[in-house]
Amino acid sequence: MNTAKVLSRSSLKALASIFPGDALSLRPEEMLIYGTDAGKKFSMPWAVVRPERTEQVQELMALAQKERIPVIPRARGTNVVSACVPDQGGVVLSCLRMNKVLSIDPRSFTACVQPGVITHDLQKKVRSLGLYYPPDPASMKVSTIGGNIATNAGGMSAVKYGVTRDYVLGLEAVLPGGEIIRTGGRVHKNVVGLDLTRLFTGSEGGLGIIVKAWLKLLPAPEYSASILACFEDEVMALEGVSRIFESGILPCAMEFLPGEIMKCLAGYGPVPWPEDAGACLIIRVDGSVDGTRHQTERIRQSLQNTLYLDVAGQEDEERIWEMRRLINPASFSLGPDKVSDDVVVPRGVVLDAVQGIRAIARKYALNILAFGHIGDGNIHVNYMHDASQPGSGQRVDQARQEVLSLVLELEGSISGEHGVGLSKKPFLTRQVGPRELEIMRSIKKVFDPYNILNPGKGI
Amino acid sequence: MNTAKVLSRSSLKALASIFPGDALSLRPEEMLIYGTDAGKKFSMPWAVVRPERTEQVQELMALAQKERIPVIPRARGTNVVSACVPDQGGVVLSCLRMNKVLSIDPRSFTACVQPGVITHDLQKKVRSLGLYYPPDPASMKVSTIGGNIATNAGGMSAVKYGVTRDYVLGLEAVLPGGEIIRTGGRVHKNVVGLDLTRLFTGSEGGLGIIVKAWLKLLPAPEYSASILACFEDEVMALEGVSRIFESGILPCAMEFLPGEIMKCLAGYGPVPWPEDAGACLIIRVDGSVDGTRHQTERIRQSLQNTLYLDVAGQEDEERIWEMRRLINPASFSLGPDKVSDDVVVPRGVVLDAVQGIRAIARKYALNILAFGHIGDGNIHVNYMHDASQPGSGQRVDQARQEVLSLVLELEGSISGEHGVGLSKKPFLTRQVGPRELEIMRSIKKVFDPYNILNPGKGI
Repeated sequence: MNTAKVLSRSSLKALASIFPGDALSLRPEEMLIYGTDAGKKFSMPWAVVRPERTEQVQELMALAQKERIPVIPRARGTNVVSACVPDQGGVVLSCLRMNKVLSIDPRSFTACVQPGVITHDLQKKVRSLGLYYPPDPASMKVSTIGGNIATNAGGMSAVKYGVTRDYVLGLEAVLPGGEIIRTGGRVHKNVVGLDLTRLFTGSEGGLGIIVKAWLKLLPAPEYSASILACFEDEVMALEGVSRIFESGILPCAMEFLPGEIMKCLAGYGPVPWPEDAGACLIIRVDGSVDGTRHQTERIRQSLQNTLYLDVAGQEDEERIWEMRRLINPASFSLGPDKVSDDVVVPRGVVLDAVQGIRAIARKYALNILAFGHIGDGNIHVNYMHDASQPGSGQRVDQARQEVLSLVLELEGSISGEHGVGLSKKPFLTRQVGPRELEIMRSIKKVFDPYNILNPGKGI
Repeated sequence: MNTAKVLSRSSLKALASIFPGDALSLRPEEMLIYGTDAGKKFSMPWAVVRPERTEQVQELMALAQKERIPVIPRARGTNVVSACVPDQGGVVLSCLRMNKVLSIDPRSFTACVQPGVITHDLQKKVRSLGLYYPPDPASMKVSTIGGNIATNAGGMSAVKYGVTRDYVLGLEAVLPGGEIIRTGGRVHKNVVGLDLTRLFTGSEGGLGIIVKAWLKLLPAPEYSASILACFEDEVMALEGVSRIFESGILPCAMEFLPGEIMKCLAGYGPVPWPEDAGACLIIRVDGSVDGTRHQTERIRQSLQNTLYLDVAGQEDEERIWEMRRLINPASFSLGPDKVSDDVVVPRGVVLDAVQGIRAIARKYALNILAFGHIGDGNIHVNYMHDASQPGSGQRVDQARQEVLSLVLELEGSISGEHGVGLSKKPFLTRQVGPRELEIMRSIKKVFDPYNILNPGKGI
């Protein structure tokens, strides 16, 4: 039996019975938004369902398996690699109505949540109890825990605190066919059996529908402080990164902005740095009040030769991070269209990567911005261009190919946070070998024998 | 074709050609040690091989797959669950001659090592470069990185720094059949494809032979300090744990010793605490010199009602940890034989677990010591007894069953560090459901279709 090409009348009837009222949508104007995400592709779903209960997800997955209907799970769709686009048709399953924080246990430092909980909402909730959920993808004010787990979302705090994977203790998921499995649980340590929890994390929705997650929490650090350090050039900025690490400090965030971006920002509004500054670092540290002061003092000492240095305590550190947040709007002055990658290289060769990307930008006469999470070698690469100009899109494609080749030559990865989805699928085999890919696909088959769950994404 | 029951003449000849000289051993007196590990079981291997090169591992695995010969990978065999015992016969593969640190990159904060590198040797090596590899299983002075990865080894620093899993960036492994796969690599972040790296971590040698590992390093903290805090009873000690976390401090180690253990230690040698102390905590913090002092001061403030409190800087904190290390020898005063478990419960119910275990000890008239990594709810449970007494072993077995039931009722795990191996296999299905186990076994089959790699262990 092949994958369904359309929703049969009987399947439609079954869907309507599982998802009464507005839990099922078939209206094109409503389904439009579910045909795309923050990536660039679009494909109309056959239907959209909005379960509130696990049983509904189970019934859907039983039906989908029987009728070979593709199911595409999603929440806020903030991913930029078209990981939620129903490009092979099928039913889009929105997790947004499964949005309860089921429990927070301050003594065990755990939370149990449904997939549709907004990450930032959980963070605020646990903060009010003196707890901390560190993963902070840029989308955290809108994106959900379920989506964060499916993509193994990172963020600026990854340098010190790691990524989503490091905070998922256990999962409950519905498999194609409707069975529920449970992996891990409410404990901080667990070495019983193969690690299915981390296998799900970053699997881009291809193994099962996450319906519940147990998360690890930390005690909330008392205080934080931030530093904006501007240098003459990027060689000096990157030497600064080394010196900070050498001083034994592990900042919770460490961002790098090259001259190109500083110029964009200067064109967009007032900036604090002098005109001759050619690169800067934005650093956040946290800990106790005294410990934080001590760290900022030590960073100040280890950063010689700065042209400008601003230190701000927790009360007003937002003025420093404002610069980081403005990169996105400011960069559109270089071109109305953006293609973005998020490559990773070993931390020691970031300078080679940044300079190599600049050479590629020159070769193709493109504005390519390379910036970001310098602390873990994760560089965002934004190709700013005007897609309406003839040949522009093609030049971006060629430049991307060269950038990805450069990254792989430097023993890097084509994605540190965004994932593969559909957008990076053409580049997948340049990083992952044929045998490894075959293994990944066979593992998917263990969970999803008929390839109905987000088919074609990631692997 | 079934699994081989004996080594054929032609297989033996092939082994001798792949492993010349003393790289192959067939002498029973030499093979004895490879028939067991730090667990209790023994089974004589058919042969022992000691590869120095990946190619030898590949040739072995090609032969083993063709002839259906079980292969049992091991290094120092410090695991206590009989995870390296060749109970179905086969060839034991010792990784100890693949023991090179291939590279350390201080600027990228990565190391690349062969599996036979002793964990503590790597730690000293990276420390001399201002770097830090945190995982610190109790066996670290003899156990290897390969074994640590295969078991996802934990240790005392897991509270703050996590376990081995959190430091494995990539692996090279030889599969049954002889193919090499590579997962992840030298980058700190990577979300391309399914996470095979973490799937291998903790897989107890059942998916492939690890021949190379890329590890994540941190900047070395400048200083550390330790605290011994003794309380009237364990309720007060465990309240102390909560208060430390509430003060926003994340210690790098936090150990709990109940009254039973303090009495053993007092019987074994001089102890610093007063006689009426009924429980204690041993805590280590790290950071900058000032930051560390600040943390110890804050911990001292948050621990009210201690009967005795000792704070020691890095220079002499060993005097505090000596108490922790003496638990093992001292506890044999309670019985010449030991069966040990390492259960985990949510941190908030540790007191329920400790008191429940004490009640079980009373019921079976056994000395059961429950102590350990309180910071992450990981409790070592040692059943001290005299196996020569009639009924003693049976009482231990019954008590273990009850302890594990209690742990599972408290939403815990039957192992936080030791793994399943053979010893905990009878308890596996009490924690892992039938469908989950079926999935794990199907995943193993993707890597090892004929079940020749450490068959019967873990899952």
